[in-house]
Amino acid sequence: MRRFATERAKRLLVGSFRSSPPLFSVPLCSSASATAAAMDSAASPVALDTINQKVLKCEYAVRGEIVTHAQRLQQELQSKPGSHPFEEILYCNIGNPQSLGQQPITFFREVLALCDHPPLLDKSETHALFSADAIARAWQILDAIPGGATGAYSHSQGIKGLRDAIADGIAARDGFPANPDDIFLTDGASPGVHMMMQLLIRSEKDGILCPIPQYPLYSASIALHGGSLVPYYLNESTGWGLEISELQKQLEDARSKGITVRSLVVINPGNPTGQVLAEENQKEIVEFCKNERLVLLADEVYQENIYVDDKKFNSFKKIARSMGYSDEDLPLVSFQSVSKGYYGECGKRGGYMEVTGFSAEVREQIYKVASVNLCSNISGQILASLVMNPPKVGDESYESFDAEKTGILSSLARRAKALEDAFNGLEEVTCNKAEGAMYLFPRLHLPKKAIEAAKAVKAAPDAFYARRLLDATGIVVVPGSGFGQVPGTWHVRCTILPHEDKIPAIISRLKAFHEAFMEEFRD
Amino acid sequence: MRRFATERAKRLLVGSFRSSPPLFSVPLCSSASATAAAMDSAASPVALDTINQKVLKCEYAVRGEIVTHAQRLQQELQSKPGSHPFEEILYCNIGNPQSLGQQPITFFREVLALCDHPPLLDKSETHALFSADAIARAWQILDAIPGGATGAYSHSQGIKGLRDAIADGIAARDGFPANPDDIFLTDGASPGVHMMMQLLIRSEKDGILCPIPQYPLYSASIALHGGSLVPYYLNESTGWGLEISELQKQLEDARSKGITVRSLVVINPGNPTGQVLAEENQKEIVEFCKNERLVLLADEVYQENIYVDDKKFNSFKKIARSMGYSDEDLPLVSFQSVSKGYYGECGKRGGYMEVTGFSAEVREQIYKVASVNLCSNISGQILASLVMNPPKVGDESYESFDAEKTGILSSLARRAKALEDAFNGLEEVTCNKAEGAMYLFPRLHLPKKAIEAAKAVKAAPDAFYARRLLDATGIVVVPGSGFGQVPGTWHVRCTILPHEDKIPAIISRLKAFHEAFMEEFRD
Repeated sequence: MRRFATERAKRLLVGSFRSSPPLFSVPLCSSASATAAAMDSAASPVALDTINQKVLKCEYAVRGEIVTHAQRLQQELQSKPGSHPFEEILYCNIGNPQSLGQQPITFFREVLALCDHPPLLDKSETHALFSADAIARAWQILDAIPGGATGAYSHSQGIKGLRDAIADGIAARDGFPANPDDIFLTDGASPGVHMMMQLLIRSEKDGILCPIPQYPLYSASIALHGGSLVPYYLNESTGWGLEISELQKQLEDARSKGITVRSLVVINPGNPTGQVLAEENQKEIVEFCKNERLVLLADEVYQENIYVDDKKFNSFKKIARSMGYSDEDLPLVSFQSVSKGYYGECGKRGGYMEVTGFSAEVREQIYKVASVNLCSNISGQILASLVMNPPKVGDESYESFDAEKTGILSSLARRAKALEDAFNGLEEVTCNKAEGAMYLFPRLHLPKKAIEAAKAVKAAPDAFYARRLLDATGIVVVPGSGFGQVPGTWHVRCTILPHEDKIPAIISRLKAFHEAFMEEFRD
Repeated sequence: MRRFATERAKRLLVGSFRSSPPLFSVPLCSSASATAAAMDSAASPVALDTINQKVLKCEYAVRGEIVTHAQRLQQELQSKPGSHPFEEILYCNIGNPQSLGQQPITFFREVLALCDHPPLLDKSETHALFSADAIARAWQILDAIPGGATGAYSHSQGIKGLRDAIADGIAARDGFPANPDDIFLTDGASPGVHMMMQLLIRSEKDGILCPIPQYPLYSASIALHGGSLVPYYLNESTGWGLEISELQKQLEDARSKGITVRSLVVINPGNPTGQVLAEENQKEIVEFCKNERLVLLADEVYQENIYVDDKKFNSFKKIARSMGYSDEDLPLVSFQSVSKGYYGECGKRGGYMEVTGFSAEVREQIYKVASVNLCSNISGQILASLVMNPPKVGDESYESFDAEKTGILSSLARRAKALEDAFNGLEEVTCNKAEGAMYLFPRLHLPKKAIEAAKAVKAAPDAFYARRLLDATGIVVVPGSGFGQVPGTWHVRCTILPHEDKIPAIISRLKAFHEAFMEEFRD
């Protein structure tokens, strides 16, 4: 009985599009019980208009309406095979590599398994099942954990020995020292972002400069904490260039409206835009933050995902230190995650933020907020230490590790190029290069008739396109409106993550759909 | 260099007590870098008076000043053995069983290790290392995860197959059905509590009825979300009885001040108070919430921790359903965690909330907030499914599992009784029974001279006592002021978690300290 929605829930589901920009919507058929759907909200002690309106205002398109619809189609495919013109749903909406078949790195998982069940380390059979360096690393990690207790709450910032390993990894990456006491281990990068927003935002008079397009965690977090998102537009015509003149203009504009701008968010490599910032550009950004007294929030979770030879990842901390700037010149937070890179361990919820340039008393406050949630999960903590300190040349696992890593990254690069070329081959579509990250963000120059057809069903044109694409091909992409875009332009975000074997079929389905769509709506 | 604090940081550390109630403080020597400590806060773009004042206001005593001091003593013991009149610090401040040597349940860890590294399942050696039912359970769990991908983000509420298992476990526990779509898997119980506070609190005009004494997660979360904590006092003289007349009085009092009371928090078994509610009392509470249109937030994380024969855990959902009340009568959220019980897997950050009695549109909002953080960690999700569905009679692991479980719970019961008797044996100390949970909350009837001595160093009397106890014995307890208490009464919270072998020594140290303390301050 619990799997059947009432008539009211069904009606809620049937409405195919909502007003533009699309509101967030969820799969009622799977997430709400029949009773809940049947309840009269007004009669409930918690009616929709009595909840925190910041929650109501928050949007998160990556798991929004289009995904709800895709899940419904998937259920239909299961219950009625052949009911749609495709056999499977291809989720290109979210950077979730292992959900599309990417295999985890063997060494990392060996270490995790051993740390989860340390009695294995005393058994002779274990040597037949695990590499010698994974066994050694597990011992080393257990030695770093008080009592070897992987089931205990850790220090609120994370296990000290693991923070040491991460600091070593950062120092090796940057060529500048890192302090383990600056590391806060978090359940993925998102809780760190929330913590910083919570710290910085006092009211809607506090603004955070965010790129547009942006990963909607930022807009969601700013909304939840009641602040103002101050947009700065990336320049699509220069490969999603980040221009200081635009930052300056938006900053001044916000200030003239009485907004105290507290922070600048930079996502590098870009999400959803895939660009990798040049070193000179990063220096300008650091200078801008220093001069304008802004906290630089650097989302660096795609630091391992670079696909072009002429670009290289540089952390903002490395850039700042190379300019001679220290803690005292600039508050800077770098976010890293185990969910991205070549490892793609999204489900493990590991990550950290490196917090520099705050006074001791403000750091106390960050520590206190971390303490309220006790600590991040220990498996995620261990994994964060592993991705920042993977096997090295000479280690038993090194060759197989390196083969797995290189295999994944080179395949991602090929997939990025193939999809980029495919989008650029479509009529009235232009697509910047994915220099890094996991996404393409092609621009759709839609015919007027298509825009009118979207308007008629109260959808944003890119949401209309994405919905049509899904219904015709099973491919799930996220409309650009979920990330923000220059008004009047339309985009979709498409991950480069489907299995490489499937890319040719995806491309041909995409082409066939697009040709038919353009034919249908040609002006 | 990074391990040395500047003079300024040292001075911050040296101040032994702050004003009463004690403010939150953190271990600067380990968490703040020298540079941060040396920075002039006023010169920083993020001065203390420019951060979100809700963050500043929030307190969390369980990891507060006393723990900071204990960590410092521990470092001193390491660097200068023999520098204190004890050899080790005994952390009785936090419910963290595995940090004090409790061993994890073998079956649970076997399953986790196999799910972390599924290729083990194909190897013959694995059968020598893992029990057959752990192998079978791992297969079952992997089959429930799309693509068997334990490294992928799951559905925002958690993996459906694991929610099915949890719903089955709840139904078996309660004798009433549970709906997997009502389950939201979370990283421990805390994020679920935050999510509900975020949903319900719009401003300081929204109130949450909380027990006093309470687990300070509640006061911290209410402060962070800008609401008002409406206290109701548990009656110490009736074993921390929860009286409806007190609820009613405080509710009316709050309403008369213009507060909209939205919710009632009940912690059962109690933290820090250890009482287990009687069924009749629970019925009154349900009736009260229904009549007053309050959301019942039921913290049921200690549901497996019952130490007395005449008490039994009943979930509030079971009580409500047994009264004939359905979803439509009462919004009710039950929080559960893998951190407590006989499993004590704090570091795994697993848990769930069962959300019933909300309208479909409000549930959408809860789902949306869950989606912004993508999902809880998969190991924690797996563990939550295991604790709600442990091995059953006839399974290969059942006997050893049951021996481990019974061993832990019966030892906890003995430790609770021994410590309770010890506290009651101290001059001018009274201690209610720990019927459940992991804590004792003895009342200290302190001599006037001790109260004056505390006042002289600007400390709360119970903080003064706890600090003296720590300095003399190495035992860390949390002052009652961190949990709230009837004004003018003084308590400490002491966990029952130190290893059983150590209990006699703890008791004799405690006695000796207390006698000397009373002697010193006798009126």
